[in-house]
Amino acid sequence: MSHFPHASLKFALTISLIAIHADFLQADPVSSSPNFVVIFCDDLGWGDLGCFGNPIIRTPRLDRLASEGQKWTQFYVAAPVCTPSRAALLTGRYPIRNGMTSAKRGVLFPDSGGGLPDREITLAEMLKAKNYATAIVGKWHLGHLPQYLPTQQGFDQYFGIPYSNDMDKSGGPGYRAEIVKDDSYYPEIQHYNVPLMRGTDIIERPADQNSITRRYTDEAISFIRANQNRPFFLYLPHNMPHIPLFASAEFRGKSARGLYGDVVEEIDFNVGRIIDTLRELKIDNNTMVVFTSDNGPWLSFDTHGGSAGPLRAGKGTTFEGGQRVPTIFWWPGQIPPGVQHQLGSTLDFMATFASLADIKPPTDRKLDSYDLSPALLKHQPSPRTEFFYWTNAELHAVRSGPWKLHVKIREPVNYGKEVTPTAPELYHLEHDISEKYNLANKHPDIVAKLLEIIKSHKADIEPHEDMLAIPLSN
Amino acid sequence: MSHFPHASLKFALTISLIAIHADFLQADPVSSSPNFVVIFCDDLGWGDLGCFGNPIIRTPRLDRLASEGQKWTQFYVAAPVCTPSRAALLTGRYPIRNGMTSAKRGVLFPDSGGGLPDREITLAEMLKAKNYATAIVGKWHLGHLPQYLPTQQGFDQYFGIPYSNDMDKSGGPGYRAEIVKDDSYYPEIQHYNVPLMRGTDIIERPADQNSITRRYTDEAISFIRANQNRPFFLYLPHNMPHIPLFASAEFRGKSARGLYGDVVEEIDFNVGRIIDTLRELKIDNNTMVVFTSDNGPWLSFDTHGGSAGPLRAGKGTTFEGGQRVPTIFWWPGQIPPGVQHQLGSTLDFMATFASLADIKPPTDRKLDSYDLSPALLKHQPSPRTEFFYWTNAELHAVRSGPWKLHVKIREPVNYGKEVTPTAPELYHLEHDISEKYNLANKHPDIVAKLLEIIKSHKADIEPHEDMLAIPLSN
Repeated sequence: MSHFPHASLKFALTISLIAIHADFLQADPVSSSPNFVVIFCDDLGWGDLGCFGNPIIRTPRLDRLASEGQKWTQFYVAAPVCTPSRAALLTGRYPIRNGMTSAKRGVLFPDSGGGLPDREITLAEMLKAKNYATAIVGKWHLGHLPQYLPTQQGFDQYFGIPYSNDMDKSGGPGYRAEIVKDDSYYPEIQHYNVPLMRGTDIIERPADQNSITRRYTDEAISFIRANQNRPFFLYLPHNMPHIPLFASAEFRGKSARGLYGDVVEEIDFNVGRIIDTLRELKIDNNTMVVFTSDNGPWLSFDTHGGSAGPLRAGKGTTFEGGQRVPTIFWWPGQIPPGVQHQLGSTLDFMATFASLADIKPPTDRKLDSYDLSPALLKHQPSPRTEFFYWTNAELHAVRSGPWKLHVKIREPVNYGKEVTPTAPELYHLEHDISEKYNLANKHPDIVAKLLEIIKSHKADIEPHEDMLAIPLSN
Repeated sequence: MSHFPHASLKFALTISLIAIHADFLQADPVSSSPNFVVIFCDDLGWGDLGCFGNPIIRTPRLDRLASEGQKWTQFYVAAPVCTPSRAALLTGRYPIRNGMTSAKRGVLFPDSGGGLPDREITLAEMLKAKNYATAIVGKWHLGHLPQYLPTQQGFDQYFGIPYSNDMDKSGGPGYRAEIVKDDSYYPEIQHYNVPLMRGTDIIERPADQNSITRRYTDEAISFIRANQNRPFFLYLPHNMPHIPLFASAEFRGKSARGLYGDVVEEIDFNVGRIIDTLRELKIDNNTMVVFTSDNGPWLSFDTHGGSAGPLRAGKGTTFEGGQRVPTIFWWPGQIPPGVQHQLGSTLDFMATFASLADIKPPTDRKLDSYDLSPALLKHQPSPRTEFFYWTNAELHAVRSGPWKLHVKIREPVNYGKEVTPTAPELYHLEHDISEKYNLANKHPDIVAKLLEIIKSHKADIEPHEDMLAIPLSN
């Protein structure tokens, strides 16, 4: 393994040339054990960053990350809600394969008794086989009982809230009711009695969420510093900007977008701190950073939810606004700057990280993961040309190339009424970016082809026992 | 006047430092006669560029312009349709003041007998007083009779189609009907018998619109080359991407977004040619380039219309999608790079250009123009804090700070039914970027204040004779 300690000056010059010529660069040799940093926001919408077209929220650090790296505009999470989306990111498998999606419940709750099965192989477990240091800092949400905690799934260390920050509600007013009365409402910590854990211990309850984004980042930076001389995998799933929204004093009241903007601007600032640390330690050119979100914006919360930009609907639906997320890959010297319009998914982290770290991904099970490294590093085609939209243990839609067929539809407000359309609806996602024009009647051949793809995919799925419906035993 | 002939190398270094540090730069001394280039698209939506969040259309040259210059995210045109928007840009006055908006017709047509009154002072006339060379290349749409042509309004030269490219319809199928049948429809030149003019002469009819974007750019570049040693004002209002959409062979079929994307990508490429010319001639650091659009996307034309991104509605309406336009200011060495969230308008070109060229703007009439140069050059507040949404000679809405009050509303499809709401609707445009949450009942004080602002504004308006309703005499 090499960290290219003397390459940083050379690289600074290379980047400035790219900025001027918008060309791709002569890559440095790739280390066989690059570091991986995955920054994963909660409910951040496709349209919430400046570089993805937000007109108000200031995200200078992420905008710069996007211009130095690759902005992926058609990048998907495997579910429009939290738990299954996270299970898919860590395992490279649709959640239907490991029981992390359910017809009965959308996600895990404090009264759930299940979690990600031990037999699943996570990114952390895969990378540990090559001596990576591994840490999760932030929201786990794949089981809070001892046998399901991150340290059982390949992570050396854990610091964070084990599920959503709106859980363990303990008195206080209804969040939505308050913001409908007055959108400047600021929640109170003690009404969300969520634990903050270190390893397997609860160290604070309720977690002081005002400082949570900053403290997660402090912890992440400590991990990076401690492991600067060996390969590491840092998984940093922020609890924000999921409601209840909390921001540090330095950010509260600072964004023209209101509290939601304050929270996103604090995340932006803290992404900058991570990048600054990598540069300071001169390991930036040996570290791939991915920034993305777990699902679309939670539109039920009005101005306290985000924006999917031009995409239809949001969290909880299989329209694009629910599952397409704002994604940036950054790796100075390796990933040529640009905008990437090809398909990719958090499902693909498994195969991509394996390829970059020169490890074999698991071969004893079905994976839904494609190696994106040729697209990321070499301007080559993305191997992902299809994507399946699962939610609540049911397949709702498929994308193949630019075409998307919906066979089940939720009303375009998240958690709205579920309807089976009288006939499947067909959209051309590249000509019609907002899924407005149903072309099923015009293209029965394409409908038929997509129905065949669905049939083959379903034949390839053996659903696992529903892990989300397991109650807490007494 | 100085063109800083030796400053280009110094400047290349300055830019590369900006790209790395994202700081603002040490400005060169400002010339008292900078060149002005205004590139004005037709019906390009707020969300149609990569840097404004389009997920599919490739606009690398404009994205680069935005990252080197200032992206203005809250920038307005004075009307949601063509003729009045253009009249306002050139005069710095709401069109109600000069008769270029009408209760009877939205815009000028080939059967119109009116145009921009001679007594109006245009940007070109103002700048001619300081010996600027002036040219318009593209769509005029302020009167096609001899007395109304650009050469009567301060422009030394004219090359272009004098009105919209869908006019003079001459047989052929209905455009909308064809694209509804098949969105890959490509129109035929001869069905749009529009003239191409040079000066006051028609030199081609029907204009060959396949090559129109390229030819406008060729002409613009010739003008720049011919005037590289004196101050110039180039006004380049493209006919595209207004329907019928036409693209050169090199661009047709190239964009994943379909024909609309082909057309925008061709504009992007041709903006790049202008910038390359300025750099080649080493006058880039003495030239302010503004890129913007005349109104929002024409949503009636499905995938042949653009996208307003997260903004509500489009062309023809006074929702944000109709009047907020994607705007980039670029002036290397003078305009510090960044994203600008303050208010601005094409109305402000008059006062801003006057200030930068050290000229007094007209003082014998009411102007609606603010000098944006402190905001553009010095990180100072924009003097524009209010904006009035006029259409069809009626005031529909007002913005003051983040608040917008609608007193008349059109259905959110352009040219939809006009309705006077039973009560004014109030939106907070910064917390609620898509105008979803009417807060009028919650904030009667703000409603009252905005009604007062409307009253004062109307008291300040003396409507001019309706120039759009004048028929062609025989």
